[in-house]
This record gives sequence, C-alpha cells and structure tokens, in this order.
Amino acid sequence: MFTTFLAARQRIADRIRAVVLLLLASAVTTACTGHEAPSALDPLPSWTAGTTRDRIIDFVARVSTPGGTDFVPQAERIAVFDNDGTLWAEQPAYFQLLFAIDRVVALAPQHPEWVDQEPFASLLKGDVSAALAGGEHAILEIVMASHAGMTTEEFEQIVKDWLASARHPVTQRPYTEMVYQPMLELLQYLRANGFKTFIVSGGGIEFMRPWVEQVYGIPPEQVVGSSIAVEFEVRDGNPVLARQAKIDFIDDKADKPVGIHRFIGRRPIAAFGNSDGDLQMLQWTAAGSGPNLKVLLHHTDAEREWAYDRDSHIGRLDAALDEAAAKNWLVIDMKRDWKTIHPAVSE
Amino acid sequence: MFTTFLAARQRIADRIRAVVLLLLASAVTTACTGHEAPSALDPLPSWTAGTTRDRIIDFVARVSTPGGTDFVPQAERIAVFDNDGTLWAEQPAYFQLLFAIDRVVALAPQHPEWVDQEPFASLLKGDVSAALAGGEHAILEIVMASHAGMTTEEFEQIVKDWLASARHPVTQRPYTEMVYQPMLELLQYLRANGFKTFIVSGGGIEFMRPWVEQVYGIPPEQVVGSSIAVEFEVRDGNPVLARQAKIDFIDDKADKPVGIHRFIGRRPIAAFGNSDGDLQMLQWTAAGSGPNLKVLLHHTDAEREWAYDRDSHIGRLDAALDEAAAKNWLVIDMKRDWKTIHPAVSE
Repeated sequence: MFTTFLAARQRIADRIRAVVLLLLASAVTTACTGHEAPSALDPLPSWTAGTTRDRIIDFVARVSTPGGTDFVPQAERIAVFDNDGTLWAEQPAYFQLLFAIDRVVALAPQHPEWVDQEPFASLLKGDVSAALAGGEHAILEIVMASHAGMTTEEFEQIVKDWLASARHPVTQRPYTEMVYQPMLELLQYLRANGFKTFIVSGGGIEFMRPWVEQVYGIPPEQVVGSSIAVEFEVRDGNPVLARQAKIDFIDDKADKPVGIHRFIGRRPIAAFGNSDGDLQMLQWTAAGSGPNLKVLLHHTDAEREWAYDRDSHIGRLDAALDEAAAKNWLVIDMKRDWKTIHPAVSE
Repeated sequence: MFTTFLAARQRIADRIRAVVLLLLASAVTTACTGHEAPSALDPLPSWTAGTTRDRIIDFVARVSTPGGTDFVPQAERIAVFDNDGTLWAEQPAYFQLLFAIDRVVALAPQHPEWVDQEPFASLLKGDVSAALAGGEHAILEIVMASHAGMTTEEFEQIVKDWLASARHPVTQRPYTEMVYQPMLELLQYLRANGFKTFIVSGGGIEFMRPWVEQVYGIPPEQVVGSSIAVEFEVRDGNPVLARQAKIDFIDDKADKPVGIHRFIGRRPIAAFGNSDGDLQMLQWTAAGSGPNLKVLLHHTDAEREWAYDRDSHIGRLDAALDEAAAKNWLVIDMKRDWKTIHPAVSE
C-alpha cells in the first residue's frame, strides 16, 4: 500500500527529527549565553523551585519521553498561550486599547468632527473612562476608527512604528519588554522538548503578528486572534488586502476552542491562560483523551506587578479560578512562583 | 536592548537550525529508499528534464542559497498549494462531492422524506446532474445534510472511514492514491530546502485535515480551506464542537489571499494552482517584494489522466491561463512535464 509506505517513511522521518531536535535543543541552549538565558541544567531559571515548577517539568518529561505510558508524538505536542496577562502584562489597560487611543489622537487632525462626537470627544480630552462609558459600541467605534480603512501592509507598519516609540505609562519601558521572563523561558523549554507553541488571544491577530516572532519566537502563522474582515482588491494594478470596518471573529471565551479548531485543527495538550476568557480553552484542552496540562497565571504580586482576580474589569479571574481549584488545574502564583517578572533592562 | 538580545539569539538559532535542517534533509532523503522516492542526486525523478523542471530548481536554489541576491530567510519561505486538481485529481467530480453523495445515500434510511425532496430525490436515484440542477442552493443542501449536525470528532471519523473504503469510480484506487507523484516529490523537495508547505484549497478544511499529514506530509495546522461554522457546547459535562448548518468561509478566488492572510499571516513566495479559482492567490504571490514563483498545472493528458481547461465545469482554467502567458508564470504541461502521474500501485 502506498499509504503504508508513506506512513513508514513518516515514522522514520519522525524518529530522525526527534534525534535532531534533541541535538538542536541542546545546541540552541548552549548558544544562549545571554542574560538569564535558560541553561541545560536549569531550563527555567526565573521560576522558584517548588510544586508549580515541578508539575510543569514533570508533565513535559512524561509526554516527551519515548516509550513512557504518557508519551505523545511530537506532532501532537501543541501548546496554546493566551497573550494579554499571560505572556505580557495587561495593566493598566490592554495594550491594544492604548494603541487605539494613541491612533485616535494621531488621526484627530484629519477628523475635526470628532471634537463633538463620542467616544472620540472624551478620548481627545484624555477622559478614557467617559469614552468607554458607551460600552461595547464605544470600543467598536474606537477600534474601527483606528484599525480599519488601510491595507494590511500599512497596518503592519503602523503597529511596528508604534511599538518602536511607545512606552508603558507606568514602567516607561517599551511594551515589548513588558513580557514575562518566566514565560519566555517556558516557551523555549517547551519548544526544546518538541512542542509547537501557539498564541490564542482575544487580541487582534494583526496587532500581534508583526512582533511576536522576534519577542516570543512564535511565527505569525502560529497566532490565533480576533480579526476584522479584509477584502482583496486590485488598486492601480496592485493587489492589496483592505481592512474593513467589520468584525470578522472575536477569539474569546467559548470561541477560543473554535479558533483553535479552525486555525490549528488539533486539540492542544497544554493550555495557559489567566482569566475567565480562557476557561473554555482550558476545558477543551482538559477534555482530550491523553495527558494534558491546564495552567492559570494568577496575578498576585501587587509590588512587582499587579494583583487582581475576581473583581477586576481587565483580566477578571473568577469562574476559572474555581474550576481550577475543583479540578486540580495548575495555578501559577506569580508572587510565590516567579523570581523575576520582566526581562532585565538591558544596558 | 532586550529585543536586540532576542534578535541576536534568534539569528544564532536560525543559523544552527539551517545547518541542522540541511543534515535532516539529507538524512531523510537517505532513509527514503522506497519506490520512486527522491534521491539526493535527483530530487524530482518523476519530472521530465526540461524548462519546467529547471525553472523550479533554479528558483529553489536562488531563494535558499545564503549570500545570494535572491536569498529569502527560511521563515519566509512559504509555499501554498491548491489541492483539487493540483495535488490530487478532481475528475470526474470533486472528491468531496462524491463523499457528500455517499453520505446522503448512507443517511437516507433516517430521512424517508428525501424520497420526494430535491436535491436528495434525484441523488438517491443516481441522477447527479438532476440533483445539481438546483445550482448553488442544491449543493449547499447536500453539503449541509452530509457535513453538519455532528461534532468535529465524529466528522473526522466519518471522513477517515470513507477514505478507507471508497474507491475512485474510474481507476478503482483509493482516493488518497489519486495524488500526483511529481507533486509529492515537489513538496518534499521544497521542505528539504527550508520551505514550509501549506494547502490553500476551496475544499473543506475538515475534509482534508484527517489525511493530508500522512499523504502529503502537511500537518493539519498548515491547511487553509472552506469551513462551516462550529460552536462550543458542553454536552453531559463533555465539551464538544458542534458543526452548524452554516457556511463560515469559502476559500476560493479572491478569498484565497484572504484565507492566506488570515491563517498564515505572511505572503507566500511560491504558489501552485490549476484553475481560475487560484488566480488571485497567484496574483497576491506575484505582488510580493522579493523573488516569487507562480505555477499553474495544466491538465493536458487525456490518456494518462484528463485533459481540460477553458470549457471545463470542474477546474476551469481560462483567465489564469491568459495571465500566466502574459506574465510568464510557469505552466506545467502535465503530458510533457510529468513522467508519472500517480504513485505506483503497491503490491
């Protein structure tokens, strides 16, 4: 049988790839001699020794050890990560909202009518709360005004330019340095053990793709996120994709498993989130037939970061925290489990 | 700068990966000693020597040779392939339509009302033309009756079971053996040279994902296709994704670049199609800023396969053939350029 032949060839290729990836992993680890880079001895140096770290390492060892009862073939080692509040900070507001506000301010000279028109009027006066008082409709107005009407290539450049100059309002660091050092180590550790790492975020897919490869080592094709519709057009003989003022997909809550299914087409064996928006993604992961790891990051560190959970407007963590307790999902206590929060400021 | 550090680390990792992939590619090639498998000396043994083959090899060499003016970093070597008529046959009808018809027949005992209800009545009498006389609406009825109403896991099993037993009406071979041997070699050749290969098909994404990894070496997460909506539900405490009787996305014509952008988020540097449904995908690829390869497979072999182009209902190739001629895109002449069409029948 031709398919049998292909399967056999695939098995041989898989075995060779497994060996090569082991070599590759150790080679990369050796090459990374920079600040706080994982070493072969300790792949997770920013994680405090203890149960949380042990459970992660134990899971990775079980699924990646050939011959073990919990072994998972490499192609099926899919790990999904929420972004806001899981891989980078989300306080004092989602960074994409701060981006949208900056865009509205930048575009205001071309829109004199915004002076009298909500939510823009309040936004331009610096009163974000008043601007958002209009709820979902107001947010949609802001997003469409700031995210639509240009080509996909133009939008990518706008995002890159903003990230290059904008600074976090509290720490004054670039947003791309507001990522979590322990999670960077975890991403690399998982990949070194044959996992394919994906972002599954409620954030805009085109807001993340321009920078996640450089910052997280996750290529754009491994990003699932919310999107607005785009349309193919030929402008002056040049094909473009034009961003429409129309929501295409909101990758949140019960639609996170939908997004995972649509984009990845496999069920993850590891899922990391930090809010009730991630609950169904963790439930979907938990319902897999093999071993799986469900993890919540609990923001408990008011000194080094922010402490918030059940009553927070941003990153509310309530039902998912209860379900984690009831089902023994792993909960990272940021204050207890992380030695470092963000990467060190480089000289 | 932290990002500079990450970029440097990424560059080192990239270089190591490039070397390892070269080793891996040759190791896999060596391991493949089966029938008509590509060898290190001739990666495309089923392709006739000549301009077509030369242009493909020349392109791959140019983009993958470090230091050359046309060098493309490995992460950006994205190649997209239409499926029906490009990677496997599409005559006498799209195989997914034959699947849908078989499903309608199998489900008929549960639907006595179909005996008097079009398009099912004609279909059950074996009159496919009459069934399809209702046009798009009739096709939609058939697809929804046969593709919706079950969970995603149930549908995957249905597809696998069908492929295991169904036979092509003309050749009597399993559909998964109706793939094109020269394209299997091309896929492997591209991957051995650092390309990431994707399917971008008007066919159903969930109809392809269960088998493309084994048959083409393309994992499910590298498949872009048409889809129906799915919804997350918890049934008896068990989370499922339920397939809805509602089209979500038709990945065809001007929506192929949209699908590419949504799922991959990078512009391909090589695109392979065979019909006018692939025209915009090739235009989008052609509009990239670097070197790129646009290829049409022209079905010219009435003896070994089928010969069809401008007047065909299935896989109509008309405007795209004109544009290929005008813009010097590569056109594979199946009769002239391919020594073999399908993989040999195994013993």
